[in-house]
Amino acid sequence: MKFGHDILKQADILATFTEDAPRVTRTYCSKEHKLAGDYLIGLMRDAGMNADYDAFGNIVGRYEAGVPFAPVVMTGSHQDSVRNAGKYDGLFGILSPIACVKALNAQGKRLPYTLEIVGFGDEEGVRFGVTLIGSKAMAGNFDPAWLEKKDANGVTMREAINAFGGNADAWRELDRSGDHHGEVVAFVESHIEQGPTLLNENLALGVVTAIAGATRMTVKVTGLAGHAGTVPMPVRQDALTAASEMILYVEKFCRENENLVGTVGRLSCLPGAINVIPQDVEFSVDVRSGLNEIRRSAIESIRKEFAAIAARRNVKVEANPYFELNAAPCDEALQKQFADAIAAQGVPVRRLPSGAGHDAMEFPTVCPIAMLFVRCGNGGISHHPTETMTAEDADVATRALLHFFENFKPSEFKPESAQRVDRT
Amino acid sequence: MKFGHDILKQADILATFTEDAPRVTRTYCSKEHKLAGDYLIGLMRDAGMNADYDAFGNIVGRYEAGVPFAPVVMTGSHQDSVRNAGKYDGLFGILSPIACVKALNAQGKRLPYTLEIVGFGDEEGVRFGVTLIGSKAMAGNFDPAWLEKKDANGVTMREAINAFGGNADAWRELDRSGDHHGEVVAFVESHIEQGPTLLNENLALGVVTAIAGATRMTVKVTGLAGHAGTVPMPVRQDALTAASEMILYVEKFCRENENLVGTVGRLSCLPGAINVIPQDVEFSVDVRSGLNEIRRSAIESIRKEFAAIAARRNVKVEANPYFELNAAPCDEALQKQFADAIAAQGVPVRRLPSGAGHDAMEFPTVCPIAMLFVRCGNGGISHHPTETMTAEDADVATRALLHFFENFKPSEFKPESAQRVDRT
Repeated sequence: MKFGHDILKQADILATFTEDAPRVTRTYCSKEHKLAGDYLIGLMRDAGMNADYDAFGNIVGRYEAGVPFAPVVMTGSHQDSVRNAGKYDGLFGILSPIACVKALNAQGKRLPYTLEIVGFGDEEGVRFGVTLIGSKAMAGNFDPAWLEKKDANGVTMREAINAFGGNADAWRELDRSGDHHGEVVAFVESHIEQGPTLLNENLALGVVTAIAGATRMTVKVTGLAGHAGTVPMPVRQDALTAASEMILYVEKFCRENENLVGTVGRLSCLPGAINVIPQDVEFSVDVRSGLNEIRRSAIESIRKEFAAIAARRNVKVEANPYFELNAAPCDEALQKQFADAIAAQGVPVRRLPSGAGHDAMEFPTVCPIAMLFVRCGNGGISHHPTETMTAEDADVATRALLHFFENFKPSEFKPESAQRVDRT
Repeated sequence: MKFGHDILKQADILATFTEDAPRVTRTYCSKEHKLAGDYLIGLMRDAGMNADYDAFGNIVGRYEAGVPFAPVVMTGSHQDSVRNAGKYDGLFGILSPIACVKALNAQGKRLPYTLEIVGFGDEEGVRFGVTLIGSKAMAGNFDPAWLEKKDANGVTMREAINAFGGNADAWRELDRSGDHHGEVVAFVESHIEQGPTLLNENLALGVVTAIAGATRMTVKVTGLAGHAGTVPMPVRQDALTAASEMILYVEKFCRENENLVGTVGRLSCLPGAINVIPQDVEFSVDVRSGLNEIRRSAIESIRKEFAAIAARRNVKVEANPYFELNAAPCDEALQKQFADAIAAQGVPVRRLPSGAGHDAMEFPTVCPIAMLFVRCGNGGISHHPTETMTAEDADVATRALLHFFENFKPSEFKPESAQRVDRT
């Protein structure tokens, strides 16, 4: 096994850079971000790259092209974690390309493009409530107003970045979108799946078709409280039974379309007494799809059915979306190259959407994107200490990634998606 | 109108004896209990009764029979209230028979039995978490261990009763059950319905068939948390969608039987994040029926269906009853006499169960029971400041009650229910 054991060992070491051992938590611009960054920069340099932090604490390594005036292919993922995280989410997407470069460098092999590996400082958004800070800055999607956001201790993002050794006001210089930075021709990301699809199908690898878009709603159902003993069933205006019917509709509707997931994760029920009919129920709805049209039409159907349920049950309902993010489709030509790289490892090619968000989703403003998914063990659990990846899977994923890098020819690459301006 | 306006005026005055004006809250052995009790004792004496507190602070008035060695008919309801209560719950059942006695006394008319009117000190259980303290004591169902229960300020029930001027250790002497107190031949209670049944049928009065029994369960559903974006619908183990199906089953099952009500009033959902599939849902189930068999078989069906839903959805469920109270059926012969009394007022006779508990439910250990319900306005809302009763309804209810008292002949009364020992 060429890569697997080393990568898992590196992930174990990175897990020791944590704010709350024995749990794993590493937030943006923390002391542990610095420890992890220094370690990753060491790995990058050891692999033959020029590497350092950028002005936002992103860890950037460059493996220079073998030809002059070459374009850039960018890859990477995030160094930060959720609270009480697993060891592979994000980090695998930094460690696996470093291993590829190390192998190329050992053979003295250069590529017809510069390979840039980025360990984004923040993707999870734990510290400042803004997600994808690193990739937003590099993809030209950063809003400088966010620099005033404060963490739980009242420290602003600006103060944190500067204290880290960065320069918060240099955000504009990180932007790789637009004409003057047009040299980035592709962004690719390898990542643990964080779901059970590959696991359930006994597959180590998958090609991502799109990073799902999402719509979120807060739904308020207003019925009429009443005595649990004295109000006959037919005249009740029970907000919780109405909400239950709505929740089951979300589930049923999303089950009927494999390109859709829908979740009610939060629910409150008032007055909340054993012997009182519920009057006020509030719940969240999160609907995701790799296809914007499917997601939008799902939200429309759901809102229509909620209104019908409420009318039938003589309760009131308000269901207004407050958050909407379009899907980021992966480039067809890049997907094809990842499919070839997977097939070359003797693994059947499975295409699947990513329900979770990833750094890659910010990059359609810069260039075509693609993602390689690696099987997530233990039922597909992620964002949790029980997240697992096997050395075998880490190995075959890295071999597939290396195949991709070795076979990617910028001169022949014709992006097939036209998503660069469809993210706003 | 003979009675209605006076009773509503008296209820208005009693509402001023409150612990948190402008709201109405009057708990057991409070200063306001004393103010209300003194006022009621004044009304009783003015109506021609001997009246005073008993050792538990119950307000007891006696209108002595016109014949020696006469039996006792007992009536009454509670003086205490929930927090932020209405004005008629409980008090109407004390005020209306006092008005009847006043009318009888004004005519110099005595009955062939002693009529005893009781204003029970506690029914709602707000102060000590034990409900029906007054009627439990008088019906021989009082557990002296409860004397050590403390209120929110650490005052025990024993201390509170003694400070009120009572004698907590005299609980045994209040007991009217058993041979040595066999003179009580019936307990009847007039009470606001606290539900919308009479209101929706345009009827002022109703005869209660039984005070419903209840079973309560806490239900725990355990699924598996997961990322709202990455776990495909078919493999989810969502505790909330499973709970939703269970909640709708409770509703459906109870809707199909008019002798049954079922309520899920409390629900918690964890981890409770918008983007995480619910893992742990806990909810309450409260099922009531005037018929014990129907309630028991409902609980059996509900538990069976919960298990089937859980099995089908690959989640775990625990649903164990922790509280069970049998129904208190009303005596058929007494119901008939109330029906006659209602018909005599030109009001159609409607029989209905009481979903809520009442003081009368403790008395099957003493004698047969019966209840007269009075229409509850404003959608049937009770336990709330917006509880309403019209002067017309108070009037016709009191006329019906007077008719009942004037026509009740202990020598001819043959109780038809045999519930006196079925409460344990």
